[in-house]
Amino acid sequence: MEPYRLTATQALSNIRNGSLTVEQYARSLLSRIQERDSAVQAWAYLEPNHVIEEARRLDRVPLGDRSPIHGLPVAVKDLIYTKDMPTQYNSPIYDGHAPKLDAASIMILRLAGALILGEVTWFDYTTKPGKTTTTEFASAQGGPKTCNPHDPTRTPGGSSSGSAAAVGDFQAPVGVGSQTGGSVIRPGSFNGVYAFKPTWNAISREGLKFYSPILDTIGFFARCVDDLELMTDLFDLEDDDTAINEFAVKGAKFGVAKTVVWPKAGPGTKMALESAVQLLRSHGAEVEEVELPTGFDRMPEWHMALTESEARATFLSEYRLAKEKLSPFLAGRVENVNKVSRAAQLEAYDGIAALRPKIDEIAKGYAAILTPSVVDEAPLGLQSTGSPVFNSMWTALHTPVINIPGFKGANDMPIGISLVAPRYHDRRLLTVSKAVGAIFEAEGGWERKL
Amino acid sequence: MEPYRLTATQALSNIRNGSLTVEQYARSLLSRIQERDSAVQAWAYLEPNHVIEEARRLDRVPLGDRSPIHGLPVAVKDLIYTKDMPTQYNSPIYDGHAPKLDAASIMILRLAGALILGEVTWFDYTTKPGKTTTTEFASAQGGPKTCNPHDPTRTPGGSSSGSAAAVGDFQAPVGVGSQTGGSVIRPGSFNGVYAFKPTWNAISREGLKFYSPILDTIGFFARCVDDLELMTDLFDLEDDDTAINEFAVKGAKFGVAKTVVWPKAGPGTKMALESAVQLLRSHGAEVEEVELPTGFDRMPEWHMALTESEARATFLSEYRLAKEKLSPFLAGRVENVNKVSRAAQLEAYDGIAALRPKIDEIAKGYAAILTPSVVDEAPLGLQSTGSPVFNSMWTALHTPVINIPGFKGANDMPIGISLVAPRYHDRRLLTVSKAVGAIFEAEGGWERKL
Repeated sequence: MEPYRLTATQALSNIRNGSLTVEQYARSLLSRIQERDSAVQAWAYLEPNHVIEEARRLDRVPLGDRSPIHGLPVAVKDLIYTKDMPTQYNSPIYDGHAPKLDAASIMILRLAGALILGEVTWFDYTTKPGKTTTTEFASAQGGPKTCNPHDPTRTPGGSSSGSAAAVGDFQAPVGVGSQTGGSVIRPGSFNGVYAFKPTWNAISREGLKFYSPILDTIGFFARCVDDLELMTDLFDLEDDDTAINEFAVKGAKFGVAKTVVWPKAGPGTKMALESAVQLLRSHGAEVEEVELPTGFDRMPEWHMALTESEARATFLSEYRLAKEKLSPFLAGRVENVNKVSRAAQLEAYDGIAALRPKIDEIAKGYAAILTPSVVDEAPLGLQSTGSPVFNSMWTALHTPVINIPGFKGANDMPIGISLVAPRYHDRRLLTVSKAVGAIFEAEGGWERKL
Repeated sequence: MEPYRLTATQALSNIRNGSLTVEQYARSLLSRIQERDSAVQAWAYLEPNHVIEEARRLDRVPLGDRSPIHGLPVAVKDLIYTKDMPTQYNSPIYDGHAPKLDAASIMILRLAGALILGEVTWFDYTTKPGKTTTTEFASAQGGPKTCNPHDPTRTPGGSSSGSAAAVGDFQAPVGVGSQTGGSVIRPGSFNGVYAFKPTWNAISREGLKFYSPILDTIGFFARCVDDLELMTDLFDLEDDDTAINEFAVKGAKFGVAKTVVWPKAGPGTKMALESAVQLLRSHGAEVEEVELPTGFDRMPEWHMALTESEARATFLSEYRLAKEKLSPFLAGRVENVNKVSRAAQLEAYDGIAALRPKIDEIAKGYAAILTPSVVDEAPLGLQSTGSPVFNSMWTALHTPVINIPGFKGANDMPIGISLVAPRYHDRRLLTVSKAVGAIFEAEGGWERKL
């Protein structure tokens, strides 16, 4: 098998046993990228010579000095600082911006011997259907260019577009992204990959561009749960309970939370959720619907109030610097065009905060809670990156969420289902997801054709 | 009067009316710095030629293109990125670190025509009496060097040591600092200046080194409230209610919250608070003690749980990079030596979050709540920067707090009193503080002798 087809876990094992060098692995990925880049266009910055040089440097590190992720190639959302590449935020304000700084997450990856391949594109999750506004910082720069690898006429989702598309297209085994609304889970679903948003603040966001500090969360993409576990190991993401290594779907109890936004679910997602429930039951699990108590119905409104009011402070600097280069959408946040009052902002902070322990308590009753990842399969066109409506609530609740691929929509495009766990039950969630993912991938009906 | 003696408001008015140039102002401050630097040692980085060059550039800006703060000299805590100077975090890990990046707050200041004088020192607020650990990142670098300008044998407080000392010593009219525990309010009190910690998140912290994201807050130092109002104007810090420009102490009602840590108050602070209450009453205000409901007594413990558990993620990158250059204190955070469980961390998040609307509701009943700023006047010696015990609760509650100078301790060192308002009542708090500050400064008994 071509090395680029391997999961990170497989490739790193080959590197460890000497059957693959980091350089060979890198060259395989680079040739895949070369072959596919015109179709997918996932990269904002990639310098093949630099990647090869870095790979060679990593090959020279003595075996005894290597961490478990030594040689892991990573695609980084162009919203996260990397000291050897520009980080341009997809914004004309930051053209050529290259501050020689690694974000905390990138520093940790690099110190462990990860191979930073390049910066991948990201696009607005604020796009509204019918509007031509395209990128978050930069309507002036034109629309999103990254395509869904499974169908280039469709969006890869956003805002972590390139991270998910690169991983879905075998151009990188692991991607680093971030989520403020649905920017990790949604593109995960659209591209048919696992996407993991850990508990808020469990991984330092230092060096990630701010949007909404109470929401912004670093997340990861991979093509299997094992690869996500490499990340949780690397970032010391521990639960209170000792890690369970085994989890049996048979006899386990799952919840299903359709949530207040369920009426927005399209036929693909309805089928996927129904199918997920049937599969779990057919494998011996108990599945019951979770009725979320009063209060949770206000989550969409509160999430909106927080993104708007926090963005007002966050983007004031760019607004002052070059209002004309800021998208009208973001300029409107700074101008508070929707007149979100401080009282509304505080009600949102406090209302959501009060629900966090409640959802933890509910989720503790289940192996995991199933909930939609998306409205439906990736929509046609690149102007809209789709809706985060099924994700934003969980972002604000700070719970870990993982997108599990396996299902498909009317056009054979992938659809995933989200699994949710209580805060700081990240490792347990990954263990559960491994068993659930095996079933969904085998029997959910979607086939990866790339 | 020498320009360096002016408040920012006075100096900017002189610049506006043509009686002072930015260069003249800068030269006056630089000569003050030259005269006093050996005694106070507030600066981590200052390049006089660069300052003069910048001042000249600002003098060349046409009058019609100037913002209200054009020419405002600012001292920046060496924990906040400035693109034309190194930002070294007082850590050997970051020696020579100069990523050519302005923090969001600095970008806003610079775009408005502020004159960034230099980076000022900062020192650990984690120092424990009896320990020789000194600086947050860097026990290896030796102890704090900045002295209290009012008595060089005493600490200026921390962690925003240089910001407060420089302003207290007339080396800069305004300082930018940050507070995670008591790092703005405490040095404000020790140096006899106004110190303002706005509502959490109201000013973007992007480009400020992370410690604890749910606590970290940008703050300001100045020698009068008018100068702090320049900052709230600049950063668009608006309350819901239209700004009141007039506030009369007479007939107003104040609360006094001694809080659960009151037994730690020394004689200086006890006298200051008593004196503050008497002064307000003598000026016709009603003052009553506020009994905080159950729950608030857990704030110190919860604040500690959050700093410890968030620092665990925040400093993982530096720990991996150079554990040996990290102070044992911070390394211990990453190693979670105090075994703060995830459950304890979540209880702290949720417990504090539930108290935020409660304190808002209580504070709305008063013009402001008075509470101690410090245990007592600045202690002798430089090894400890003093205790943040009276500040950390308000940091975690996200309320705006201002230190008002005016009182003194047994050794004639300044002692301030904190005024607290509900979240996002920042402007109202400043207006109230102006009236209260006039009384405390005139009748509180402390005299600025510098």
